[in-house]
Amino acid sequence: MSNQPAQPRDTAAKPARERVVVIGSGFGGLFATRKLARTDVDVTVIAKTSHHLFQPLLYQVATGVLSQGEIAPATREVLQGQKNARVLLGEVTTIDVDAKTVTSVTSVGFETVTPYDTLIVAAGAGQSYFGNDHFSEFAPGMKSIDDALELRGRIFGAFELAEVSEDPEEIQQWLTFVVVGAGPTGVEMAGQIAELAHRTLKRDFRKIDPTKARVLLLDAAPAVLPPFGEKLGKKAQGQLEKMGVEVQLDVKVVNVDDDGVDVIDPDGSPRRIDARTKVWAAGVQASPLGKQLAEQTGAEIDRAGRVLVEEDCTLPGHPEIFVIGDMMSLKRYPGVAQVAMQQGKYAAKTIQHRLKHPDGSKLEPFEYFDKGSMATVSRFHAVAKINERIQLSGFIAWLMWLAVHLVYLIGFKNRVTTLMHWAITFIGRGRSERTVTEQQVTARMALHREKLAEQAEQAGAAKNGAA
Amino acid sequence: MSNQPAQPRDTAAKPARERVVVIGSGFGGLFATRKLARTDVDVTVIAKTSHHLFQPLLYQVATGVLSQGEIAPATREVLQGQKNARVLLGEVTTIDVDAKTVTSVTSVGFETVTPYDTLIVAAGAGQSYFGNDHFSEFAPGMKSIDDALELRGRIFGAFELAEVSEDPEEIQQWLTFVVVGAGPTGVEMAGQIAELAHRTLKRDFRKIDPTKARVLLLDAAPAVLPPFGEKLGKKAQGQLEKMGVEVQLDVKVVNVDDDGVDVIDPDGSPRRIDARTKVWAAGVQASPLGKQLAEQTGAEIDRAGRVLVEEDCTLPGHPEIFVIGDMMSLKRYPGVAQVAMQQGKYAAKTIQHRLKHPDGSKLEPFEYFDKGSMATVSRFHAVAKINERIQLSGFIAWLMWLAVHLVYLIGFKNRVTTLMHWAITFIGRGRSERTVTEQQVTARMALHREKLAEQAEQAGAAKNGAA
Repeated sequence: MSNQPAQPRDTAAKPARERVVVIGSGFGGLFATRKLARTDVDVTVIAKTSHHLFQPLLYQVATGVLSQGEIAPATREVLQGQKNARVLLGEVTTIDVDAKTVTSVTSVGFETVTPYDTLIVAAGAGQSYFGNDHFSEFAPGMKSIDDALELRGRIFGAFELAEVSEDPEEIQQWLTFVVVGAGPTGVEMAGQIAELAHRTLKRDFRKIDPTKARVLLLDAAPAVLPPFGEKLGKKAQGQLEKMGVEVQLDVKVVNVDDDGVDVIDPDGSPRRIDARTKVWAAGVQASPLGKQLAEQTGAEIDRAGRVLVEEDCTLPGHPEIFVIGDMMSLKRYPGVAQVAMQQGKYAAKTIQHRLKHPDGSKLEPFEYFDKGSMATVSRFHAVAKINERIQLSGFIAWLMWLAVHLVYLIGFKNRVTTLMHWAITFIGRGRSERTVTEQQVTARMALHREKLAEQAEQAGAAKNGAA
Repeated sequence: MSNQPAQPRDTAAKPARERVVVIGSGFGGLFATRKLARTDVDVTVIAKTSHHLFQPLLYQVATGVLSQGEIAPATREVLQGQKNARVLLGEVTTIDVDAKTVTSVTSVGFETVTPYDTLIVAAGAGQSYFGNDHFSEFAPGMKSIDDALELRGRIFGAFELAEVSEDPEEIQQWLTFVVVGAGPTGVEMAGQIAELAHRTLKRDFRKIDPTKARVLLLDAAPAVLPPFGEKLGKKAQGQLEKMGVEVQLDVKVVNVDDDGVDVIDPDGSPRRIDARTKVWAAGVQASPLGKQLAEQTGAEIDRAGRVLVEEDCTLPGHPEIFVIGDMMSLKRYPGVAQVAMQQGKYAAKTIQHRLKHPDGSKLEPFEYFDKGSMATVSRFHAVAKINERIQLSGFIAWLMWLAVHLVYLIGFKNRVTTLMHWAITFIGRGRSERTVTEQQVTARMALHREKLAEQAEQAGAAKNGAA
């Protein structure tokens, strides 16, 4: 071990280099960092996970197609060859806009203060339960590897518990899956769970019949995949229904608990859906760092916590701070990977431009180039909207989806093994990554024991009250 | 959903068929079950995990080479085509030898009572800390997927935290890894951690130099890999030392805590090793079901909790109960996968023999056919002992290790993706499966916060005492 002081090895000799700090290792942060590879700056990426997450394929980790490593390469490995970039594990607690520092804390409590000349805030967004955070325990979101592995445990576990149960009503509860939110993630999850039930697990059980499982996809909006337009939305809905998914639109979720979901139907009447497994794919809330920036600078944030940025993706009055990706609001650009990637590159280009033009000349404002959107509904079936004219659905769209996702997956290795796992899943009927940890099983047990104890206590109290 | 009563679909019509219950989905349980595929019996496999675990490759999950799915296929998928076998998820709490029933409980508290005519107990063994169970928090074992993922988080996390730390002493603690136990698992873990430090992570950091990490392999015995004999043990030790592993033999571990390990050296003097990451690969303790069987039947158990069985692997006085694999003691057979597999097949053959010969004629006693043992030390280097005459080390042994492990990995799919991941790791220098969950990071943080609070409290108490 070297006992050198704490400066980065490569830069100790050149302290005058511009210091760029990037918060977040998602699409925005990573694309900004990589774009700066040959620029004469020092980049520090601070992120609370040690991996980059390819979120568009998270649902495949949740449903046993891919392993977590395939969609979450170590950020450090991705940036291995980029000498001017270092990676710092830690959760950012404070951005001090006046002092120009970022404070982060690691899992064991180390606090690090990193000074910056330019800051790129790309901390993304988490799931939003619209003020009902207690839903999260019963209906995990789809935002992190943790979420995906938790849902994997619950989905496969539900079939296991249905097989063990002797009570027909309870069996039906275990075999009912509710997905809230009919955006791309919700559509993909519902389609995958239906495929698990009807195809993958078909011959795995002896007592229950997995093909009798119910999969419900709920949304408060009147359409599936609203940003794709009516035509593709209807196509996707039709394909989902062909697979056995019950699509219920204009339905508002008002409560979620361990056994089910309470909804309000389009006619205003309340209804209960008994279901043990719920997935929440209904809303996003930007990182709380947005609010912190707003409080310090007077910038505005919208209801989802996103910072309203200038046309060049900077914080009003603070040209040295970029806010990009799911954390920002600009011209109603959608919260998708493409926007984050393009803004990441734009921020990097702006930094390069400023280094070359110390006179203060400016780049053109950021303009999002929409390459289109796609979502898979089932194997061999996707919908793709390139623009208003080119809209595809079915097998061709699915092939496009396949190609695009392979291209954007980071790392050759991940592309090869992912392709292999897809072959196993799409051509065969298997799922290679069904493993659930014992700790997840134990956590579930603890949850239930508490509930049983509570019920027993209430029953006891009721009895005492009566006596 | 079918509202049929709870009998297995295939057997409701034939209640008179012999009921075989298998406890455990490890090598013993699975090989017994598969051998009974065409026998006129109903097999119920009860296991507390939903996967079969290929334990010999667990260290590769811990060190980022393989994903958990590759070494842990769903038991249900493995037995998908075997119509006479059903799988029941649950932890066995009670075996009632008189009533001939097995009681198991699932994660949500369902209790199931399964009657048997013949019982095969193959519940394996857990890690033993020789009466010091409090070590386990600081030095996880290597027995389950949970263990492997926990160690993955700690090993990769240690390098991350060393990179963040500013204190040279603490950095050295994070870069010191202690593996306790120089059997195959310990040797393989130490070799892999050394390879991570010297090869995989070499270019990943900017402040620390991963190649300066220390990896220590400790054992209270005087040799590495004792069952392989002196010659191969020395070879393995030499290769480990070439890779930078410090092998310390005749060293007794007397305490393990968060910051390090206390040992007694061969000369009797105590010594402290400062190390944040510890792996325990030093002993096994058979499933507590062995003790339960002993208490009910008067059978003997040894110090490691193993049941002393008859020559035909049955419980003394109970020919209907087989105890196999790591849970039994017979003729000093070692606790390895091969013994469990062969005993599983033997138990199945005995059941078949009894069905054919109701007169009570017996099979020959069980005889272990030792096909040899092997352990990898590093990429391209292994040791293999086929018998006293044929002992190999180096590249040829490594090729044999590769071939044998591929053959015994269950499922074609897993073989293909595993081979791919091995190519990435052995030919390239990458590790595809480095992902750590946030929950692991949070747990570590909680552990540390408690410790810090405790220290603060003690400091406060000392201050008050002084005042």
